[in-house]
Amino acid sequence: MTYKRPTVGIVGAGQLARMMAQAAIPLDIRVVLLAADPTDGAAQVVPDVVIGAPDDPQALRALADRCDVVTFDHELVDPALLAELEADGHRVYPTSTSMALAQDKRRQRLELGEAGFPMPAHANVDALADVAEFGAAHGFPIVLKASRGGYDGRGVWMADTIEDAERVLDGAQATGTVLLAEQLLPLDLELAVLVARRPSGQVAAYPPIETVQQDGICRELRVPAAISVTLGAYATRIATDIAEQIGMVGIMAVEFFVSRGELYVNELAPRPHNSGHWTIEGAATSQFEQHLRAVLDLPLGSTLPTGDGVATINLLGEGADNDPRRRLGDALAASDGHIHFYGKEPRPGRKVGHVTAVADTLEVAIAQARATTETLLGAVPAEGWTRDDR
Amino acid sequence: MTYKRPTVGIVGAGQLARMMAQAAIPLDIRVVLLAADPTDGAAQVVPDVVIGAPDDPQALRALADRCDVVTFDHELVDPALLAELEADGHRVYPTSTSMALAQDKRRQRLELGEAGFPMPAHANVDALADVAEFGAAHGFPIVLKASRGGYDGRGVWMADTIEDAERVLDGAQATGTVLLAEQLLPLDLELAVLVARRPSGQVAAYPPIETVQQDGICRELRVPAAISVTLGAYATRIATDIAEQIGMVGIMAVEFFVSRGELYVNELAPRPHNSGHWTIEGAATSQFEQHLRAVLDLPLGSTLPTGDGVATINLLGEGADNDPRRRLGDALAASDGHIHFYGKEPRPGRKVGHVTAVADTLEVAIAQARATTETLLGAVPAEGWTRDDR
Repeated sequence: MTYKRPTVGIVGAGQLARMMAQAAIPLDIRVVLLAADPTDGAAQVVPDVVIGAPDDPQALRALADRCDVVTFDHELVDPALLAELEADGHRVYPTSTSMALAQDKRRQRLELGEAGFPMPAHANVDALADVAEFGAAHGFPIVLKASRGGYDGRGVWMADTIEDAERVLDGAQATGTVLLAEQLLPLDLELAVLVARRPSGQVAAYPPIETVQQDGICRELRVPAAISVTLGAYATRIATDIAEQIGMVGIMAVEFFVSRGELYVNELAPRPHNSGHWTIEGAATSQFEQHLRAVLDLPLGSTLPTGDGVATINLLGEGADNDPRRRLGDALAASDGHIHFYGKEPRPGRKVGHVTAVADTLEVAIAQARATTETLLGAVPAEGWTRDDR
Repeated sequence: MTYKRPTVGIVGAGQLARMMAQAAIPLDIRVVLLAADPTDGAAQVVPDVVIGAPDDPQALRALADRCDVVTFDHELVDPALLAELEADGHRVYPTSTSMALAQDKRRQRLELGEAGFPMPAHANVDALADVAEFGAAHGFPIVLKASRGGYDGRGVWMADTIEDAERVLDGAQATGTVLLAEQLLPLDLELAVLVARRPSGQVAAYPPIETVQQDGICRELRVPAAISVTLGAYATRIATDIAEQIGMVGIMAVEFFVSRGELYVNELAPRPHNSGHWTIEGAATSQFEQHLRAVLDLPLGSTLPTGDGVATINLLGEGADNDPRRRLGDALAASDGHIHFYGKEPRPGRKVGHVTAVADTLEVAIAQARATTETLLGAVPAEGWTRDDR
């Protein structure tokens, strides 16, 4: 009997789907995409593409009918539609329940808090009185967050005073945005832990990553993170426990704040994540291969780093007149940083690629990744390199 | 102005094209294939495929018209057709001249001999008298080789006596096969050196690889090769000199015999080569990315190994009832060997994939790669592991 290739359907066709498709080739895993547009980054490199919106039940069903398992490039899907697919016997990983949790920050705080995971003080705020009460308990400034749909700094507001908070609340009410308030923690640094889990229960975590953020956008990843072994082990334990607690299937990023030496869970992303791009060259198994293995219930791979220092820098678009792809030749000549383009037209602030360097020390890896990035952008980014510049 | 992706056309759609397509994704290089069949390994994973035979002038032209440069997955192309493309202004790398040289072992021996590269004693043999003369000069046994078309042990015959040689000659004359004779060297081991060259002249060589052959088929690759630094440097120098001598563009494998401590050039393959598969995980830049860079005249990447020991084992098919892909789960559980399937149905002796392991010592890398391979095949290969079993 002829061998039947395992087939993974991916909802969405951005860079995460593109890098999953790349990882699928050596294992002879077939990938089918549900792409909104045939020019999407992943649709450029995958032959099997269903064109349709991620919230179109017909399109989702057409994808599921062609696959052994449905997974995701993004979270812009309706969990109710996923639950229907599950009810019809389709495998959907992460499950509709995990996807619903990931989309709803209020629910994340509630469920993870009930399970005892450490989190910043927080409260649902539906009226100014709720904000006033939270501010009285924890002091200003406070952070206000949209419960749904925020990313890359969008959907997050700082409120120094109750008047600031009122303006945010007014705007939110006008757009139907549901909010929660969180205490503003003084940050030592931010971390992420990637953890993969199979339906049969096997769990594998990568070493904690330091994520250097600027204006809410992740700029740089550093492995190893500048934390103690104890704190790293604790973060890893929390991420693993959350994966088990929520019945995660696939890879998940758990983002943490470190404040005055203490860990706080920030949020969850139940899919390959920007904070895991370093694993392509920097770990024995890339997060994309690990995710494919997990959703197909195949044994998970080693998560060990391939070098003593790994640095990844996100390439943020600056506009069509400064396309980093035009400087590919110069950048390949400049250093040994590994360049990953996502097949996207550059728009200001849009992630259009990343650069990873693996070296004997983190300092050398950072220097190499920055050299390649500066050459691709034609200059040091306007904001300079991160606050704690090395 | 919108960025125009560089586009590479590949004649042929086997595993080399498949791995080139994978390497093209991060650099946002577009790949178009000329595939004989839509089910070919690379055609399964590339959206842009021209269906046609590699010797069909119309199909070749259709490919060239869509690309910045035409390159190759195999050597089964007519150099005259390539020369026509070149005359029409298409870039073809390696050039028609390099491809003609690679196809013709008599011409390789002549040109490389005239340039002074060390080679086994050899002679063109068209009649039994030629063989008798060569045997008288160098002694039996001798090796008879088809000048064109041989691979994986096909097209090579041992002749212990003049009578053996007569049978080979009769068979060759019946099929119109042109032969050459070579002295049979007692082998210490076999090597390959991969070298890449750009049109603008930059050259980059990878460390010498030990290629362990059995019945004329490469079974195992080992880095570092068990040779002295001096011999390694000499092999690297020869490979680099040949690349310059023949005006090579792209990556080329130069295969060597080592006999009684001396180097002899065996043959050339002007494309990504089986002996370079270790570079995907085992070198800073894979041979596939390096080839794409070279044919697009982009700066070449570092050829340094990523570990102190790298081993690659070819997966040879044993028949449709023993498809190694069925044991993917067991093999992923067995070791950290990196598995590469080529999307091919297994037939006896057909290369259907390979396994690479990178470790702190070569011995550990070999053990890991063998463990994964044994699990994929369900057993130690019938021939056992290579003669100099470790």
